Amino acid sequence: MNENLLGIAAGILTSISMLPQLIKVIKEKNVGDLSWIMILILILGLSLWVWYGVLKNEHPIIVSNAFAVLVNICLFICYFLYKDNAD
Amino acid sequence: MNENLLGIAAGILTSISMLPQLIKVIKEKNVGDLSWIMILILILGLSLWVWYGVLKNEHPIIVSNAFAVLVNICLFICYFLYKDNAD
Repeated sequence: MNENLLGIAAGILTSISMLPQLIKVIKEKNVGDLSWIMILILILGLSLWVWYGVLKNEHPIIVSNAFAVLVNICLFICYFLYKDNAD
Repeated sequence: MNENLLGIAAGILTSISMLPQLIKVIKEKNVGDLSWIMILILILGLSLWVWYGVLKNEHPIIVSNAFAVLVNICLFICYFLYKDNAD
């Protein structure tokens, strides 16, 4: 299988996987079972993957991780907006 | 910065980021705000990243994504063990 196509497919799936969580949090305005530590460490790690992709010049890695950084920044903001709604 | 070191650092952070969520779910036995669709798509996407890493022969990608697959399989199992505890 072509490596770039595989990378793009992998990137689309891992990017899409972030969205239902974000949509669910925005709809329910409840983040009681989410871990903000996870989100913060994830943002740092994903940012390093973007850097790695830039150094290796691998576009699937750059694009999918940059998208994931954006989604998780939204999730991080939502956490602090909605955390007082937790039961 | 050395590419492999950067990849290892990125891999450690994104791998670690999975653990607080898993620990929180196991401790609280409550998955009401998690999305099982996210976990399933994530497992598929991460598995493709492992394959991509194998084709490109990039060990940071293989190891960190394989670890993430394992953590998310645990999370997926927990979801169905604890979903009836949701309020």
